[in-house]
Amino acid sequence: MSGFYCPVEPAINPHVGVTEARAVEWLDRVGLGADPRLREEVVRLNVAEFFARAAPEADDEPMQVAVRWACWAHLFLRERGGDEDFMTTAGEVQRALEVPWHAVAEDRFALALQDIALAMHGCATGQQARRFADAHRAWLFTAAWQASLDSMGLAPSLDDHVMMRLNAASGAPTAALLEIAVGEEVPAHEADSPPVRALGEMAVLVTGWDTDLHTGCGVVEVLAEQGRTTVERATEQARAMRDRVLTRFLDLREQVLIGPVSEALRGYLGSLGHAIRGNIDWALGAPRFVGFTEAPAVPGQRGREWADSPADADPSPLPIAAIAWWWDDM
Amino acid sequence: MSGFYCPVEPAINPHVGVTEARAVEWLDRVGLGADPRLREEVVRLNVAEFFARAAPEADDEPMQVAVRWACWAHLFLRERGGDEDFMTTAGEVQRALEVPWHAVAEDRFALALQDIALAMHGCATGQQARRFADAHRAWLFTAAWQASLDSMGLAPSLDDHVMMRLNAASGAPTAALLEIAVGEEVPAHEADSPPVRALGEMAVLVTGWDTDLHTGCGVVEVLAEQGRTTVERATEQARAMRDRVLTRFLDLREQVLIGPVSEALRGYLGSLGHAIRGNIDWALGAPRFVGFTEAPAVPGQRGREWADSPADADPSPLPIAAIAWWWDDM
Repeated sequence: MSGFYCPVEPAINPHVGVTEARAVEWLDRVGLGADPRLREEVVRLNVAEFFARAAPEADDEPMQVAVRWACWAHLFLRERGGDEDFMTTAGEVQRALEVPWHAVAEDRFALALQDIALAMHGCATGQQARRFADAHRAWLFTAAWQASLDSMGLAPSLDDHVMMRLNAASGAPTAALLEIAVGEEVPAHEADSPPVRALGEMAVLVTGWDTDLHTGCGVVEVLAEQGRTTVERATEQARAMRDRVLTRFLDLREQVLIGPVSEALRGYLGSLGHAIRGNIDWALGAPRFVGFTEAPAVPGQRGREWADSPADADPSPLPIAAIAWWWDDM
Repeated sequence: MSGFYCPVEPAINPHVGVTEARAVEWLDRVGLGADPRLREEVVRLNVAEFFARAAPEADDEPMQVAVRWACWAHLFLRERGGDEDFMTTAGEVQRALEVPWHAVAEDRFALALQDIALAMHGCATGQQARRFADAHRAWLFTAAWQASLDSMGLAPSLDDHVMMRLNAASGAPTAALLEIAVGEEVPAHEADSPPVRALGEMAVLVTGWDTDLHTGCGVVEVLAEQGRTTVERATEQARAMRDRVLTRFLDLREQVLIGPVSEALRGYLGSLGHAIRGNIDWALGAPRFVGFTEAPAVPGQRGREWADSPADADPSPLPIAAIAWWWDDM
């Protein structure tokens, strides 16, 4: 099996140890660490490391917002994702996020999310907070969509899988958190332009598919089932598709950055690349740092997990209608 | 029973006849008018009149976008809202809206929505189109939430009712369409600021509750059930609550408009007032215009349907946690 192609240099935020320690302390403070098994699970996830790799120069305050939310989201779906009345819970926590100034529900997840949102309003602009809230609703929407398919015993088509993958697994909220972590607000005329929207979506899909490649789930399962083929063959197909998307991402990003763009956009697009790279390093179990205050070593290219070139560099659009527009002339 | 309090002058767009005729022609062209019963129903709704009252000075192109979408939304929920796989349909049409440049599903609702979205991109900025798309997802999310409660045989609490009412019944997408119809883009630092967000939400809730007052549904039912009281008493309560929200809306809007605001925001906040007023005129069955090319007469205050003063002008917050923040000092 070939390895991950990712021509982005690894980097890591030196505050990572402090960030993780503060996030764990917060989990306990707001009562989300009450179940020892789930607490252990989320601490082991070490999402601080992912964000430290995706935003190597960010300050600790916005990093706390990002890491706390990722922990919150993991626990929320683990504890509430399968509830019959999930839509009501989802509607209430979404409202809690959007208007954090008054408690709108007594639920500890709603209250903890408001705590995160208040911290967010302290280090993000109104527009950045709104972008996160919109991505958050899309994420909840997709969780409900997945639950609905599960309850009917249905598997998604490849097209539906892609539409769901763009908003499942925290990808879109994470991109919004990265904009906040990097700092400056990306102006709307840039952020809402087709190429920047497409780049954000591509980064989300590549990181999602990379997780699927690590775990053999998601796109690998969909391709194996649809093509009635082996997991090995489906994995190869998924890797080729993933490499075509990454190739387009790198190409389009270069085109955008040649133009006169804001420093904020430059930082944001940089962090999308770091997120793709960091997501792989994080998942490959890069050497853990020692203690909470020392920065970890940055792993280099480590042998057969990595590939020097894409498995498929075909510049034409993937035959998936939901994302065909990424290859349009923008 | 007391009447509607609404100190906003009525007005109507002179193009209303043309707007309606073109929208009906479009319905037939894209195949949404195929069922004669539903076609008759949506034509009778005459949403062109509502938008003509809400945006009295708008051009016909953005009005087409608004009116076509309102017709589309009515038919979509009538035909698909009760489907077991509604989440999949909703996810697909949302994606179709967000990336209208390639067909993402063969469904006629998805294709018709892409037709609307392409027209929108022709007369709106990327940011305006994105605002509409986000409101659209919130609307679909709420339709799924309502369906979930229905399937469990549950009635919403007053708090949940309010959270749902803010995104049900097209209110939030309609506000986004009005921004497009009025023309200029409201800058993000204004649109995403707490007072402007609150004003948008208040206008949506007042128009939603006014519809409930006309029909005896929604908030009237919730109050009657929760308070174990008569429909008459619940109607009085609902009207008092509605008048308190409108009082706060008028007060906060005046505060905002005293400051140095953009012309775009001034126009948008004006159209929210026209929408509240126009929604009542429209629902009261104002005299229909004759033919499709003549402007209708503007109805004046017409007797007992109207009230000169609010039933309750209490400036303190309603005891509803989800909206208590509207009364914060902003």
